[in-house]
Amino acid sequence: MGQTRNVLFIMSDQLRHDYLSCMGARHISTPHLDRLAKMGTLFRRAYCPSGVCGPSRMSFYTGRSATSHGATWNSVPLSVRELTLGDYLRPMGIRVALAGKTHALPDLDGMTRLGIDPASERGRLLINAGFEPFDRHEGHVEPPPTSNYSEYLRAKGYDSERPWHEYANGVTLPDGSHDTGWWLRNSRFPLRVDKADSETAYMTDRALGFVAEQADKPWLLHLSYIKPHWPYCAPAPYHDMYGPEDAPALSRGKNERESAHPVVQAYYQHEEGKSFAREEVVNTVRPAYMGLVKELDDNIGRLLDGLEKMGRLDDTMIVFTADHGDYLGDHWLGEKEIFFEQAARIPMIVYDPADDAVRGQVDDTLIDGIDVVPTFLTALGAPAHDYVVEGRDLTPLLRGKGDDGRRDYAVCELDYAYRRARLVLDQPAQRCRAWMVRAERWKYVHWLDYPDQLYDLHNDPDEMVDFGVDPGHDKVRAEMRDRLVEWFTTRRIRTTAPDGFEADRTDSHTKRGIHIGEW
Amino acid sequence: MGQTRNVLFIMSDQLRHDYLSCMGARHISTPHLDRLAKMGTLFRRAYCPSGVCGPSRMSFYTGRSATSHGATWNSVPLSVRELTLGDYLRPMGIRVALAGKTHALPDLDGMTRLGIDPASERGRLLINAGFEPFDRHEGHVEPPPTSNYSEYLRAKGYDSERPWHEYANGVTLPDGSHDTGWWLRNSRFPLRVDKADSETAYMTDRALGFVAEQADKPWLLHLSYIKPHWPYCAPAPYHDMYGPEDAPALSRGKNERESAHPVVQAYYQHEEGKSFAREEVVNTVRPAYMGLVKELDDNIGRLLDGLEKMGRLDDTMIVFTADHGDYLGDHWLGEKEIFFEQAARIPMIVYDPADDAVRGQVDDTLIDGIDVVPTFLTALGAPAHDYVVEGRDLTPLLRGKGDDGRRDYAVCELDYAYRRARLVLDQPAQRCRAWMVRAERWKYVHWLDYPDQLYDLHNDPDEMVDFGVDPGHDKVRAEMRDRLVEWFTTRRIRTTAPDGFEADRTDSHTKRGIHIGEW
Repeated sequence: MGQTRNVLFIMSDQLRHDYLSCMGARHISTPHLDRLAKMGTLFRRAYCPSGVCGPSRMSFYTGRSATSHGATWNSVPLSVRELTLGDYLRPMGIRVALAGKTHALPDLDGMTRLGIDPASERGRLLINAGFEPFDRHEGHVEPPPTSNYSEYLRAKGYDSERPWHEYANGVTLPDGSHDTGWWLRNSRFPLRVDKADSETAYMTDRALGFVAEQADKPWLLHLSYIKPHWPYCAPAPYHDMYGPEDAPALSRGKNERESAHPVVQAYYQHEEGKSFAREEVVNTVRPAYMGLVKELDDNIGRLLDGLEKMGRLDDTMIVFTADHGDYLGDHWLGEKEIFFEQAARIPMIVYDPADDAVRGQVDDTLIDGIDVVPTFLTALGAPAHDYVVEGRDLTPLLRGKGDDGRRDYAVCELDYAYRRARLVLDQPAQRCRAWMVRAERWKYVHWLDYPDQLYDLHNDPDEMVDFGVDPGHDKVRAEMRDRLVEWFTTRRIRTTAPDGFEADRTDSHTKRGIHIGEW
Repeated sequence: MGQTRNVLFIMSDQLRHDYLSCMGARHISTPHLDRLAKMGTLFRRAYCPSGVCGPSRMSFYTGRSATSHGATWNSVPLSVRELTLGDYLRPMGIRVALAGKTHALPDLDGMTRLGIDPASERGRLLINAGFEPFDRHEGHVEPPPTSNYSEYLRAKGYDSERPWHEYANGVTLPDGSHDTGWWLRNSRFPLRVDKADSETAYMTDRALGFVAEQADKPWLLHLSYIKPHWPYCAPAPYHDMYGPEDAPALSRGKNERESAHPVVQAYYQHEEGKSFAREEVVNTVRPAYMGLVKELDDNIGRLLDGLEKMGRLDDTMIVFTADHGDYLGDHWLGEKEIFFEQAARIPMIVYDPADDAVRGQVDDTLIDGIDVVPTFLTALGAPAHDYVVEGRDLTPLLRGKGDDGRRDYAVCELDYAYRRARLVLDQPAQRCRAWMVRAERWKYVHWLDYPDQLYDLHNDPDEMVDFGVDPGHDKVRAEMRDRLVEWFTTRRIRTTAPDGFEADRTDSHTKRGIHIGEW
């Protein structure tokens, strides 16, 4: 144990918080993630900044809410003006690299307007959300030239023009024929790649290679797994390790569906909403999803073993989290975005190698995904950049020192302008936003033009009864709205703020013969 | 009358709304501004985006609130990422130029990080808030090389290394000696420049020269007068055109001072607060201020005459406004920033040359300074850029068509982190922010860490009684806070938003073999 010199920032995509055994899952065992939790702190009430990849990740990279960084959905780029982990850490001589997915879109408008060549070194970093693309593979499209995965697959004998599409996401049907894993109905069949060559295994190998290559030179690696994100197909033996009977009971009610919030009802009409309302889909996808989680956990085991062998557990902070969850049929929904616990709450394990960090700690503080950035900055001795960084440093919690009662709520956001729900509701594109505030007992959602939602998580942890328009809960809603005001009014919006504010400039003015308000 | 091809965007600095005779002032006559009002629409309830030069102006140039553009005070630059009138209009072949002040600070951090040479054409525009610096003279420091004013003064025989400092802001004392106009006590004495060579006269000449030079080529000129901003000294005969007896009664109460809000009390301790609490200061400065307003009005007369002669009243939209007001001792304050009407409310006259614009209209709709940007864009047929522009187009109001009841409040903001008040209060720099919401009857101010303020403008137009902590007004405060939530939740924060949102991407995905949520 000792001083943090490196950070391994692991993100899985669309991983539910309640599919980890350390988080209480009884239907699946994740011993390697449990091991990581025993090494550090398990935050059981962590929330993603937004329930969809792009905005959530841009928050994880900037330490800022989507409202502040402006990349509000997957289609919206991160502005060239936003600072990221790369900007915060690279000046300190730390290599800041990516293995896997970012969902970062290039701000081509901004680069064109400001004359930045996307092919320049600066442009390359801006395009990759500030990371050096050690191996950038987004996982929902064919690997780009920044990834070695296609070449790797071909070298391993997966002979194809599109090995990712045909093998890493293609399945073998019972009759020996092949089909794409993109169809949900194919989730029960094994991928055509061996488990040693899957996206999850490959990216784990890449991470281990990166760490070995760095030796004693400091680094932050964002190891960003696409799985268990769709296509929901796993390699053998994970594809049929579980059956429908192994999955937990569905969390959805008939009353809930009939009285659902207007925007939630619009989400029912999305393709994934219609699909996951069907038992057949749920029964086919969930076992595969469990297999993917198990595969991920096994690779986390390989990763931890590798780090240990290289001596890197002594000087490397490790964060394991997810960008958001997945409904898998709960609440009659597929995918994510809407603010129920299945999507908004995320796994969060932080291993801090410092001598005074608490081991095996379980912490129920309400925390936000953006809190990891200031935690990294503290661990690596970097400037706080707190004129833009909005997250709250987790270090005191990791050391068992509490948080001075500062944390009272977590926030998650949504911009559904780019979703079919907007068309269903015929809603103006500028008015498709919502904010969730989760406090100790209540979860409150504020929608533009639609009623509030309000759930009592103490008495109704499954979020089946919405008090959003109940007159008996006016006071609770007002208190939750006050928290939303507090949140908005404390976003960090100044363009710059040099160290120390020059709050009294009288002297410097006087020297120039300028006297303000003086007789 | 006809189609708008040009925009003359006139801003005076620190001009109170109630020092125009068309706004009801009885102590001063401003016939030329009154003439402009008769040509167009006088908005009697317009509010500045922030009660201090920098943030207010950046809002006027971007069409965005300070919370959105991030230049929250005079010391904070406008981010290179922000789009301005220049970005909105230059692509249409419109020359977008500046004569006078902007208070724009260069975002040197942003330019360095993004590799933008400040000396390049792009850098030059970024440094000048998107304007071509036709004649940039900020008015509170010696004119920079972008202004011709020093050279002009020397050519006119004002022989000095620093003619602006010595003549344009230097006064002649009764004994014939000279002193700087920066001392408030010197406000009663005449400037050493002739009224034909004052900053106000010079910049008017420059504007007329620009308009003549452009002939029939389209333009937007930001004619930005430093006056009646301090130093509060006017050239003869304006310097003694008025006496203390001509100024209106001071609006300040003993009870008000004793029970003032903590942040207002901290402002009392600013140099200008201490000065303007003194009768002597008030009696010396206000007559000079009135003289400066009169001088400004006379120059507006010259300007309108010049435009008329050149035929430009047929195709030029004219806006006359101010960045904020000035206390001049009212409420025991000097300067501005705090949210009483003297500072937050601004003059706003809009002349629209269109045939169907209403002439001589008085409009009491609550409007924001940021509303002028979309109004310019509409007048010039430019794209709305409404993914960033937050102002609401005034055009329907100019044409007498109302606003569909959309406008219910105006908002003004403050960041006092850079002021002595922060030190007086020992307040963290990140928690020095406040927001004013002005609705039909009530004015509400939300402060971080300090009590609300609440004024009943129907029954207490002078804002002497603060109901900010009165339990009998809980409901009013809650309603005002709801408006603040509405305001925050409708800021335009997306990085980009191409025309048309791709709200249903199923088809384009399917073509690439990607099926989301499909069985």
